[in-house]
Amino acid sequence: MAPQKGNLMTYRKDIQVVDATIRDGGLCNNFYFDDEFIRDLYTTNLESGVEYMEFGYKASRDLFNPEEFGKWKFCNDDDIYEIVGENDTDLKVCVMADVGRTNYKRDIVERSNSPVDLVRVATYINTMPAAIEMIEHCAKMGYETTCNIMAVSKAHREDLLEALDMIGKSPADAVYLVDSYGSLYPEEIRNLSEMYLEQMDKYGKKVGIHAHNNQQLAFANTIEACSVGVSMLDATMNGMGRGAGNCMMEQLLGFLKNPKYQLPPVLRFLEQHMDKLREDGVQWGYQTAYLLTGRLNMHPRAAISFTKEKRHDYARFYLDMDQE
Amino acid sequence: MAPQKGNLMTYRKDIQVVDATIRDGGLCNNFYFDDEFIRDLYTTNLESGVEYMEFGYKASRDLFNPEEFGKWKFCNDDDIYEIVGENDTDLKVCVMADVGRTNYKRDIVERSNSPVDLVRVATYINTMPAAIEMIEHCAKMGYETTCNIMAVSKAHREDLLEALDMIGKSPADAVYLVDSYGSLYPEEIRNLSEMYLEQMDKYGKKVGIHAHNNQQLAFANTIEACSVGVSMLDATMNGMGRGAGNCMMEQLLGFLKNPKYQLPPVLRFLEQHMDKLREDGVQWGYQTAYLLTGRLNMHPRAAISFTKEKRHDYARFYLDMDQE
Repeated sequence: MAPQKGNLMTYRKDIQVVDATIRDGGLCNNFYFDDEFIRDLYTTNLESGVEYMEFGYKASRDLFNPEEFGKWKFCNDDDIYEIVGENDTDLKVCVMADVGRTNYKRDIVERSNSPVDLVRVATYINTMPAAIEMIEHCAKMGYETTCNIMAVSKAHREDLLEALDMIGKSPADAVYLVDSYGSLYPEEIRNLSEMYLEQMDKYGKKVGIHAHNNQQLAFANTIEACSVGVSMLDATMNGMGRGAGNCMMEQLLGFLKNPKYQLPPVLRFLEQHMDKLREDGVQWGYQTAYLLTGRLNMHPRAAISFTKEKRHDYARFYLDMDQE
Repeated sequence: MAPQKGNLMTYRKDIQVVDATIRDGGLCNNFYFDDEFIRDLYTTNLESGVEYMEFGYKASRDLFNPEEFGKWKFCNDDDIYEIVGENDTDLKVCVMADVGRTNYKRDIVERSNSPVDLVRVATYINTMPAAIEMIEHCAKMGYETTCNIMAVSKAHREDLLEALDMIGKSPADAVYLVDSYGSLYPEEIRNLSEMYLEQMDKYGKKVGIHAHNNQQLAFANTIEACSVGVSMLDATMNGMGRGAGNCMMEQLLGFLKNPKYQLPPVLRFLEQHMDKLREDGVQWGYQTAYLLTGRLNMHPRAAISFTKEKRHDYARFYLDMDQE
């Protein structure tokens, strides 16, 4: 077992917190956030000391109809400028670009003409070459980049090792361990984190973690990864994110010991905005059906339908899913 | 760091699961469960393969008015017989006896005249001598016994070591690590588990874990303790328990690999009974206010009031609590 990095009394200066509320949370409301929400979130992130704020996806308007989504599905530079101005702060702006869903040659322009600092390229293990092309483009345009390999619980170890090697040799600044299905236990997260760190250490690159809360393990998995050396930590306000959601910002900032992190601004944001979203009917967070798809290492889509339909027949759902 | 016990592909025969739904869940509804609930829970526990079912507290009728509580606050032997008959099964019956709240000399009679197999003696660190007396009485009456040291996050290490030594020398079969305030992180649970195990190994006794979900870490902490050798694992249906509740039975049985454990009966019980309790207004489970008392290592009572009053001013609550 690798030695522990850091302890519960001190803090590590290499840790960076990424607020992914708009991006992962947008999957719950088709990115229809009002501007006041986004402005207050920006202020909250500034006050709470987090390092990055993800504004959404850089999705292609050729593939997705702008009339069916809020603007943060597309993250036009102008829309971000509207919120952050020149962003003369320590808070960096990031966006996510999905392989195969982003017209990056057209939409991701020179960083000097954009409010964006970091582009996170999201890929499955079988589209790594396309991800590397996107990373090379974004790096050439001047951006920081990460490669987020989704659904890692479905990937084979030998493929993962090769993907990590490709990322190591690319201009990417970091690779993300992404437990898309919320199916991994802390023990597995620790082993994968050690594998990612070992590969990235060779190239002087960072490792990040993006956890899902299907088994109520998103926070535990995030701090487990952190304890062995993972340094980019994703969280969202009240855990807002697809299905069971993510590691909650309020959990994570309550845990981290760096005095730069402030919990009260986050608590005020929950009170002012997140509770209201829930009252307005936006749904996310742990439910029994998510536990079951997580347990079965499956995409949560069936559990999302189950929850929306207000079904309670968990045993039937589990047996049906287990036979797929 | 101690070596890991067991792995994710095999199972350990020493593991025993304890269903504490009635006992810890009873704190949410003053033990007013109907008989159908209790009978179905007994059947569910039989079918799902758990080892122990806790029926409630053995509280003294001199101290608590029976008109203000359901019968499982008192656990008369006759009431348990009514449910389990001669209990000619592999499922053992247990009750909890609180130091200072149990008239054990009167109410805990010879095991041969009782349906109870295991008495769990609950104590704070400063009432250990009284706990040992109760354990000695119960052991003399023929029962298995455990000593559950509550609120361990408030105890000093040297006191804890002495308490463990007292338990080691007593007739108790096991000691429980109890995170009453849900304030401990997995790393702390691991360290405490190793300390408990090291002390108990000397005497050939078992260690158990009872976790609370204030920081959504009850399941993670339970499996963390398990991974270093803790073998008695408490869980409740849908996590029902005081405040943020406990490790959920459905999480735990989804994790354990022993084929004797069956998840579907638990899922049917959730569907038939637990969802109904919630609809009837019984409250338990993770809420932001519990995260905050957990983070501050405090009793959850202020958070329970906050939640009942449907307050949303988390930042104010946090600042008020932090100044106590």
